[in-house]
Amino acid sequence: MIKVGIVGGTGYTGVELLRLLALHPQVELAVITSRSEEGVHVAEMYPNLRGYVDLQFSVPDLDQLSSCDVVFFATPHGVAMDMAPKLLERGTRVIDLGADFRIKDLEVWSHWYNMEHSTPDAAAEAVYGLPEVNREQIRGARLVANPGCYPTATQLGYLPLLEQELIETSGLIADCKSGVSGAGRGASVGTLLCETSESFKAYGVQGHRHLPEIKQGLAQAAGTDVGLTFVPHLTPMIRGIHSTLYSVLKNTDVDLQQLFEQRYADEPFVDVMPAGSLPETRSVKGANTCRIAIYRPQGGDTVVVLSVIDNLVKGAAGQAVQNMNIMFDLEETSGLHIVGLMP
Amino acid sequence: MIKVGIVGGTGYTGVELLRLLALHPQVELAVITSRSEEGVHVAEMYPNLRGYVDLQFSVPDLDQLSSCDVVFFATPHGVAMDMAPKLLERGTRVIDLGADFRIKDLEVWSHWYNMEHSTPDAAAEAVYGLPEVNREQIRGARLVANPGCYPTATQLGYLPLLEQELIETSGLIADCKSGVSGAGRGASVGTLLCETSESFKAYGVQGHRHLPEIKQGLAQAAGTDVGLTFVPHLTPMIRGIHSTLYSVLKNTDVDLQQLFEQRYADEPFVDVMPAGSLPETRSVKGANTCRIAIYRPQGGDTVVVLSVIDNLVKGAAGQAVQNMNIMFDLEETSGLHIVGLMP
Amino acid sequence: MIKVGIVGGTGYTGVELLRLLALHPQVELAVITSRSEEGVHVAEMYPNLRGYVDLQFSVPDLDQLSSCDVVFFATPHGVAMDMAPKLLERGTRVIDLGADFRIKDLEVWSHWYNMEHSTPDAAAEAVYGLPEVNREQIRGARLVANPGCYPTATQLGYLPLLEQELIETSGLIADCKSGVSGAGRGASVGTLLCETSESFKAYGVQGHRHLPEIKQGLAQAAGTDVGLTFVPHLTPMIRGIHSTLYSVLKNTDVDLQQLFEQRYADEPFVDVMPAGSLPETRSVKGANTCRIAIYRPQGGDTVVVLSVIDNLVKGAAGQAVQNMNIMFDLEETSGLHIVGLMP
Amino acid sequence: MIKVGIVGGTGYTGVELLRLLALHPQVELAVITSRSEEGVHVAEMYPNLRGYVDLQFSVPDLDQLSSCDVVFFATPHGVAMDMAPKLLERGTRVIDLGADFRIKDLEVWSHWYNMEHSTPDAAAEAVYGLPEVNREQIRGARLVANPGCYPTATQLGYLPLLEQELIETSGLIADCKSGVSGAGRGASVGTLLCETSESFKAYGVQGHRHLPEIKQGLAQAAGTDVGLTFVPHLTPMIRGIHSTLYSVLKNTDVDLQQLFEQRYADEPFVDVMPAGSLPETRSVKGANTCRIAIYRPQGGDTVVVLSVIDNLVKGAAGQAVQNMNIMFDLEETSGLHIVGLMP
Repeated sequence: MIKVGIVGGTGYTGVELLRLLALHPQVELAVITSRSEEGVHVAEMYPNLRGYVDLQFSVPDLDQLSSCDVVFFATPHGVAMDMAPKLLERGTRVIDLGADFRIKDLEVWSHWYNMEHSTPDAAAEAVYGLPEVNREQIRGARLVANPGCYPTATQLGYLPLLEQELIETSGLIADCKSGVSGAGRGASVGTLLCETSESFKAYGVQGHRHLPEIKQGLAQAAGTDVGLTFVPHLTPMIRGIHSTLYSVLKNTDVDLQQLFEQRYADEPFVDVMPAGSLPETRSVKGANTCRIAIYRPQGGDTVVVLSVIDNLVKGAAGQAVQNMNIMFDLEETSGLHIVGLMP
Repeated sequence: MIKVGIVGGTGYTGVELLRLLALHPQVELAVITSRSEEGVHVAEMYPNLRGYVDLQFSVPDLDQLSSCDVVFFATPHGVAMDMAPKLLERGTRVIDLGADFRIKDLEVWSHWYNMEHSTPDAAAEAVYGLPEVNREQIRGARLVANPGCYPTATQLGYLPLLEQELIETSGLIADCKSGVSGAGRGASVGTLLCETSESFKAYGVQGHRHLPEIKQGLAQAAGTDVGLTFVPHLTPMIRGIHSTLYSVLKNTDVDLQQLFEQRYADEPFVDVMPAGSLPETRSVKGANTCRIAIYRPQGGDTVVVLSVIDNLVKGAAGQAVQNMNIMFDLEETSGLHIVGLMP
Repeated sequence: MIKVGIVGGTGYTGVELLRLLALHPQVELAVITSRSEEGVHVAEMYPNLRGYVDLQFSVPDLDQLSSCDVVFFATPHGVAMDMAPKLLERGTRVIDLGADFRIKDLEVWSHWYNMEHSTPDAAAEAVYGLPEVNREQIRGARLVANPGCYPTATQLGYLPLLEQELIETSGLIADCKSGVSGAGRGASVGTLLCETSESFKAYGVQGHRHLPEIKQGLAQAAGTDVGLTFVPHLTPMIRGIHSTLYSVLKNTDVDLQQLFEQRYADEPFVDVMPAGSLPETRSVKGANTCRIAIYRPQGGDTVVVLSVIDNLVKGAAGQAVQNMNIMFDLEETSGLHIVGLMP
Repeated sequence: MIKVGIVGGTGYTGVELLRLLALHPQVELAVITSRSEEGVHVAEMYPNLRGYVDLQFSVPDLDQLSSCDVVFFATPHGVAMDMAPKLLERGTRVIDLGADFRIKDLEVWSHWYNMEHSTPDAAAEAVYGLPEVNREQIRGARLVANPGCYPTATQLGYLPLLEQELIETSGLIADCKSGVSGAGRGASVGTLLCETSESFKAYGVQGHRHLPEIKQGLAQAAGTDVGLTFVPHLTPMIRGIHSTLYSVLKNTDVDLQQLFEQRYADEPFVDVMPAGSLPETRSVKGANTCRIAIYRPQGGDTVVVLSVIDNLVKGAAGQAVQNMNIMFDLEETSGLHIVGLMP
């Protein structure tokens, strides 16, 4: 059994980790921390866990956490970068679901996250946890930076095109739509039901923190910098991300359907749908799957890729468990055999 | 492995059965029928099942179905009563998720369902599949009548009070609220998003088909007829039933919390919450659990029981799987270890 | 033109008042106050008002407010009771949409609102602003206590029965369902989209502040105390209240449909629907109407009244405007000719 | 008073016309037709209209309709093209909310609508009813083709850029999101609450009937053909369209904010928001307004225009009333002073 700790378990990413780990056959949930909720039973805050999780929130304690094989950080940025290195030192591996270790260029990181990075060595060591790109590095990693939700859906949709140098690398447009759970569980007027339900809007048009992360991943796949316009939107539902990805083919004489099917043939969590399909976010609700469809409208040179995930699963907690499975040589799909909840 | 067939798998109850059975460790899904969708891959209609269910819909065929150990009927009333006896004859057990075998008094049945019952013998033999009441009879049953959704939530909320003769049996009021999936997947103006979203209404006030089923169950628990007003309401969400149950205590000197806790102490799928809790339907979304809380507002003699289920799970497909587990001497919770999807 | 001020205009009741008053042909909006948003343009916070309302929020100022003919308080309880008397003194009339003046028995008020009442004289003078009961007193009133949302829907549903002494006054059950806007615009985890959407729950079962207000109104109609169990529920939509009201007829030989139609024949904002109708909350979305239907399920002695309003309109701002119209001898429907937004 | 008839009033566009026209001070609603609902009171089907509209649906009758000053067609394509010319002949003006007269090139029309056009002369005469472009022609028109919903939001967002030749005319990308009411009120599985709620998906990626209409309008503004990729999406809400419009500036030395403000300075129903604003569809819910914001992300050469409307109002019935006002020399805003319903 893998002994697991979670730091910062009161948010949506935290409860989703608990949902997945509680049923994971090779995991023992040992500790979950929250300063503000010390002593509260997890199942009191999240009654869906009644009968499945018996833990209470505790104050983070290095000794206790370092007794775990792996610790997940489901914390705002700035927390993991301080604590993770201490755990690594004591031999505990770390998967950070926050943003502290995702961006390699720490100047870029500081620019977007408005703070100095406190542990550049750890940042340098961290492996970006997108298994479809970095599976082998993840296997040996001590510290995994779990990708953001928009970056996961968007990179998986662009990767085959960029890796094969099939599209112009400037003028990429990622028009992305997210359910409200992406904004977290903080008390905030902006995410009240009465503010977000029955409405649709863009946000972060001038710049969103996932932009540099996406650009980093796409540039790596392309072998060159990319020009990307990324516009996130808030859509009135709880879970789900839909990335609509536009690019221009350099050469229209290519079978895109086949390209995507081959690229992801061995990937357990990327499902390239048959030509003509329209992926719905609900088809992955609660599941660790990314579903993709590819179009060339009116047979032109514009490629449209549709890529959907559950932002809390493949976009956060599920991908983190997938990374854990890889790191500990478990079956990669262990604990992740989940059929999307539909309807 | 239990070899399983499903008749009428295109509706919401059918896809929910598939979701549960696809991951059930002791089940082999052998056949799923639909006349209208013959030849269509199940996963084409329900892409959440891609990678989990490889079946195509086929026309119902007695030979094929009778090769199964058990056949689930997820059909409108009137279908199972004709086919089920033929399967029983050939040794295949049947779980009917429809209404054909729920009501013992066939005159009452005919009155509410507007047709003659074609197989009274089967109706007489059928066991009402509420495990919390009939577990032992279910174990040996050839034919199980899976309860309706409102009846499940409502009976589980009233049973402890009626079995102990603690409340007046006249004047019971069950004010029940259901998500829209209870109305099924038929093309109908009344259940369009634009007709049901952002609105709330009662329906069936003059009489709903679940009324006689609930009264039958309550009368059996009470050992006498009961007077019940049952008002169902449509609430703008996909899944979930919330029954708010009112009754008058004969004697206020009783610990209701303890009564309910003891009644359901050994029940794996009934969760009596701590005093003062407010069960939310989302806490059981996708799970086979019924969560209950008990109140005496202002300490008076009116008891208010709050009882929530997922109408598609404990109110339909999940309970059907629970019944199958009992019938085939499997662990009762097998395939039903599911944490509600929250948020 | 009636010169109007609003104290506390940043919440949902406030913006709804603005929506109605901005288009009211006899109203001049003069001032709107908010300490926290001083200087902010109203239309910046509520862009639906762009082009219709040009005011900025200002700090409450007695001189400025007392230059108005009438001031609406859309404030939490405890605010109006201090400021209203000062305005009355200066000749400005007051309509309080909060709870300070609704309950005549100040001991009861203090018990439920957890504070002393600071101005008992004003409380004694205040007229309870339910026009269907107190129209004549409202006409001459200086201070009107605008009813709560649940109390409006619930009283209008019970009044004809109680006034005619047709039902038992004990054992009344009001099972009420509200959209989330009833909880206001405060930043709070409990009313996030991700906490309230796709779920249904009861709350305040042990006691809700609208209980004493409802009981006061029903007792007045009945001429005697009433026994009432009131259970509010949160339903996943923005606007709307649905009260399902149960009571027991003393005598079943009465034409309830006719009774209700006659009682409300001259009421511009109470619509008794034809027998057999099912009022939907969406039919009154944005409108000042209360729609009612009456049932005797299975012809028994239990009466079920269904009563729907928009909690922000007939349950708050619309009723307040209706009261203003009455107080200032305007056409009662002025500014309130609104067709519900459907779909 | 303008005497008005409506052909095909049972759908969402029809009821929205009724909502607007019932309160229009210069309109007399004379007739509303529906073959399937003959004799049904409009207010029975749409109870929000109780007390406001007293009409019954009748079978379309040329004599009756031609007694009107203007007839609105809220019908599927193919209906208006047959009836409209007969009304014109008799001196009744026509506003078609359907698609029969929107596209000037009838070969293109036939290709997308899969039928021959029966009345080319009428099609040639029809004026495309986008007042912000064709106000003067609308004034004198006998036959107005009311624009589609996506085309309205999309053209209003692109017009200033194309008219001034500021952007590349190839490579335009319109990523559009619509509420479900755009799909109409027909009984259909695809628009059930349980199929569309809590999910997001693209549709019509290979080609949607609004594509040629949008291209026609943009080409006219640009004075040359345009290359456009148009991807519509279904978003889980009732009303609202959000167009996110991408294009590439030829010259970045231009004040886009000022450009848009000037272009629409005199337009009563186009609201260019201050720089940095994020238009929400709910801000125009029920209102005839198009709200627009303009961005150049990271100061690059990509322009992003955000344009929102209520698809049933500015995208259908409201724009039709606006056109009627223009045609009959009424105040253009008459009957359209509506504040969006927020929350």
